[in-house]
Amino acid sequence: MSEPRPIVTLTTDYGTGDGYPGAMKGVILGICREARVLDITHEIPPMNVAQAALVIQSVVDYFPPETIHVVVVDPEVGTERRGLAIDTPQARFVGPDNGVFGLIWEQAKARWPRESTTAVVLAEPRYFLPQVSPTFHGRDVFAAVAAHLARGVSANELGPRVESIEPAPLSEPAFEGNATLVGQVISVDRFGNCICDISSVHLVRLGSAEELVVLVGDLCMGAIRRTYADVATGAPLALLSSTGRLELAVRNGSMFREFNIQPGTKVWVSRSAPKSD
Amino acid sequence: MSEPRPIVTLTTDYGTGDGYPGAMKGVILGICREARVLDITHEIPPMNVAQAALVIQSVVDYFPPETIHVVVVDPEVGTERRGLAIDTPQARFVGPDNGVFGLIWEQAKARWPRESTTAVVLAEPRYFLPQVSPTFHGRDVFAAVAAHLARGVSANELGPRVESIEPAPLSEPAFEGNATLVGQVISVDRFGNCICDISSVHLVRLGSAEELVVLVGDLCMGAIRRTYADVATGAPLALLSSTGRLELAVRNGSMFREFNIQPGTKVWVSRSAPKSD
Amino acid sequence: MSEPRPIVTLTTDYGTGDGYPGAMKGVILGICREARVLDITHEIPPMNVAQAALVIQSVVDYFPPETIHVVVVDPEVGTERRGLAIDTPQARFVGPDNGVFGLIWEQAKARWPRESTTAVVLAEPRYFLPQVSPTFHGRDVFAAVAAHLARGVSANELGPRVESIEPAPLSEPAFEGNATLVGQVISVDRFGNCICDISSVHLVRLGSAEELVVLVGDLCMGAIRRTYADVATGAPLALLSSTGRLELAVRNGSMFREFNIQPGTKVWVSRSAPKSD
Repeated sequence: MSEPRPIVTLTTDYGTGDGYPGAMKGVILGICREARVLDITHEIPPMNVAQAALVIQSVVDYFPPETIHVVVVDPEVGTERRGLAIDTPQARFVGPDNGVFGLIWEQAKARWPRESTTAVVLAEPRYFLPQVSPTFHGRDVFAAVAAHLARGVSANELGPRVESIEPAPLSEPAFEGNATLVGQVISVDRFGNCICDISSVHLVRLGSAEELVVLVGDLCMGAIRRTYADVATGAPLALLSSTGRLELAVRNGSMFREFNIQPGTKVWVSRSAPKSD
Repeated sequence: MSEPRPIVTLTTDYGTGDGYPGAMKGVILGICREARVLDITHEIPPMNVAQAALVIQSVVDYFPPETIHVVVVDPEVGTERRGLAIDTPQARFVGPDNGVFGLIWEQAKARWPRESTTAVVLAEPRYFLPQVSPTFHGRDVFAAVAAHLARGVSANELGPRVESIEPAPLSEPAFEGNATLVGQVISVDRFGNCICDISSVHLVRLGSAEELVVLVGDLCMGAIRRTYADVATGAPLALLSSTGRLELAVRNGSMFREFNIQPGTKVWVSRSAPKSD
Repeated sequence: MSEPRPIVTLTTDYGTGDGYPGAMKGVILGICREARVLDITHEIPPMNVAQAALVIQSVVDYFPPETIHVVVVDPEVGTERRGLAIDTPQARFVGPDNGVFGLIWEQAKARWPRESTTAVVLAEPRYFLPQVSPTFHGRDVFAAVAAHLARGVSANELGPRVESIEPAPLSEPAFEGNATLVGQVISVDRFGNCICDISSVHLVRLGSAEELVVLVGDLCMGAIRRTYADVATGAPLALLSSTGRLELAVRNGSMFREFNIQPGTKVWVSRSAPKSD
């Protein structure tokens, strides 16, 4: 037991009620009996590649290195879209090349030397199940490949290396002049908190949190707060989310339901007028 | 560690929000500390025995032999309905005798010699929890029995053998003449794909996929396709599901929502007129 | 492997679709690679502290002693509300001091000598993640502390002992005279069964089940039954739930939907008039 058992996580849009994630778990354990399989989620909204990219980015830093993350949101299953395995100093990944890995790929390139991150196209059917359904690669390709990685197969054995992958289908905020940043809501969480494409990195370029003002349509959220309790119960606020993005929230309420803010809603962040002293 | 740790899976209609599956996990680990407990799903629609039968059948082939599958959709809990443990060359099963095991039972009888599959009625309270609630056998009977199986108790010790069990409450397609098969939708998945009671075994008797035509009410789906991408985005199609059943789908859409197809909707498959050449 | 691997369970209101529980799992495995992480639920209704208190109480007796239960429903995250670790002869607990542990605390005090149960305030940031987000203590504080407990840190090292904690925000039934108990519905499960604040302990003080009569508004449920099948399909009934509380149900139906019974609905239990013989 000196070698720790390999960890495989699952992130899909399958829901659980039809048994699709259960079949993936069976495939993994059938190939690699000692793997530990953990659910990240199966509740990505159907076909929402952007949400899968955000979720996997939000968890990857916390797992032990060598963890294998299977991410399957796959609206183009059965077409010529490629399957990928990615190897970074932080983790390994298996899934379709449709943008689900866009954020972790950018992050890896920004953090580590280029050569420490590799992506390969899944081209070796001997690591798939013998029968590959054209509609369920999560089970027949990606779960099987992940289990082979867990058994010690290296990414290089899976297929040829590629130099670029699909980016995540997410908007980027833009500067209007040098005092205003315009972005949009990209995700709404279970509590109705609205997550924006504007990150702390963007905000730092604009100014410090206290001197910024956040506007959403007619609604002025004021400065960027530290936590929900910085405003009264029921009041809206802007703050930095636990993943480092601008978040619009209502203390003990729902920004989504109460203010009808949703993905695509535009958000402005401006440096407030300098104090005249 | 030469002996691999026993695997126990859970399939229920309990949802998770009330803690019922959590109690089952506790019971299993309390009796068999080294068991590995995996969720298949707790989101079977309440009391939907047919869906449970379909889901467990769809996952069982992928797990290592000896895996113990607990399946509890149990509308008649507290009545005289029997509890079962089933042993096949592929897996072991524990749950109520109400049809949840109907499909895996038929499958085992078709695949293996009759004597290699056994079912016993759960008749030995020493393998239950000391207090058995009349409304939660999932916890007090089935989870406990599964944990004892995981510890090495054999099915024969649990109670007397039975020769037949409840069939799954699922329709069977019927031939109209020898050129048309009439079946129905039996399940709708999270994506709105509609699964039929017509399997590849039935279709083969009718003809090859390209020469068959699928009709649902007024809607002619044409031939049976290989995958979603064989039609244009937004178009309906018929194909073989990843579990080998006829599936009605809309590419990147929802057959259920867009065409109001649901369980019980009739489906016709006909051999198309032979080409006059 | 003489030492069994530590078990950590998770109970939250996070849902899974945003990846919050996934991040908690990563934190736990990142700190304690050999921990076994099990989901109780992530589907507690958002900010419903009472439901979390009920759920964790309903599962705790079934797990092996030493199990670590992380419970995070945390509407006041980022305020001065305290974080707790609790140690009882039955289990260990980590989460906010807002009532989620009110029921297990009362139960421990009732069962075991006072000194065998301890609660400490989480005051040692060296057991947190290096960066603590003001909005996600589930990840940065509670998961991290649980993992350190799993590694062998004792509760006493985490901070100063406290003598009392927040009670669960749940109503208590009251006697009207000595023949009637007035309580209310406190929870509705996935099947529409309505769970009351009246427990078997309260009922025993009133009389035996057969001589009691349950009233909900205009609806007389009659005596307390043993199980659903004691009435006809579709009929309402009162019975003892699998967790020992008064439950209002409809056999193979939904009390919640069919009779509009919900949390807060008043319930009367009376000793029926003595038989004149």
